[in-house]
Amino acid sequence: MSNNLTNIPGLDHIAIVVESIENGLKFYEESLGLKVLIIETVESQGVKVAKLELNNTHIELLEPLEANNSIGRFLAKHGQGLHHICLCVNDVKQWLNTLEDNNVCLINREPVTGSQNRKVAFVHPKSTNGVLLELSQV
Amino acid sequence: MSNNLTNIPGLDHIAIVVESIENGLKFYEESLGLKVLIIETVESQGVKVAKLELNNTHIELLEPLEANNSIGRFLAKHGQGLHHICLCVNDVKQWLNTLEDNNVCLINREPVTGSQNRKVAFVHPKSTNGVLLELSQV
Repeated sequence: MSNNLTNIPGLDHIAIVVESIENGLKFYEESLGLKVLIIETVESQGVKVAKLELNNTHIELLEPLEANNSIGRFLAKHGQGLHHICLCVNDVKQWLNTLEDNNVCLINREPVTGSQNRKVAFVHPKSTNGVLLELSQV
Repeated sequence: MSNNLTNIPGLDHIAIVVESIENGLKFYEESLGLKVLIIETVESQGVKVAKLELNNTHIELLEPLEANNSIGRFLAKHGQGLHHICLCVNDVKQWLNTLEDNNVCLINREPVTGSQNRKVAFVHPKSTNGVLLELSQV
């Protein structure tokens, strides 16, 4: 069953879990030459974030603030690496309704507030072939 | 040390390993509504690939042709999920030289031929905070 939304989502960012932002920037900023747009602490999500610019999207480096939050546990279990991808959409709630109609398993059935006060929601990896997928309203 | 390249790379694609393209398309094409640009078998890389369109980049679903190639072994070890990201650059060889000057560990020290006859090269995850990174010349 196709969804009824005509807008094609874009990629907002790729999130990479790192042991430390400082170490991560040695490759992504210094060697690869990407511009750092912002480094911020997002207490509600338990992470320090460095947002880097590609010419068509962003990379976010995520450093856990504590070992015992979800990002810290991911790091302990899997090591550094790709964590999730985030698609930007016009209307998160409408997408959640459409996905639920398609029997897609949602982590958030209602939008929550993410960084920069955006409405966001996560789709469960068991419905996305193992990919943690964030939807972010722009 | 910063590199000497002034062009900011763009994201060419995100690659996701799936058990089967057919199953992967149930979410990415049918539920998420992404357009399938091409489905092809790339014998040299041992994969069947479905390329899907986002409005600013692409998602590639990779299905291993055999259990005992690199994608098949990834699937057996990690399950389905994010596999690598690919940045498009103007000159792969120049980037490899620059990265090597920055003591970045390369999987390919010279460009190899990838799908669509593009020059590509992979950077080792130990230099990228755990991310398998492809560079593709466009």
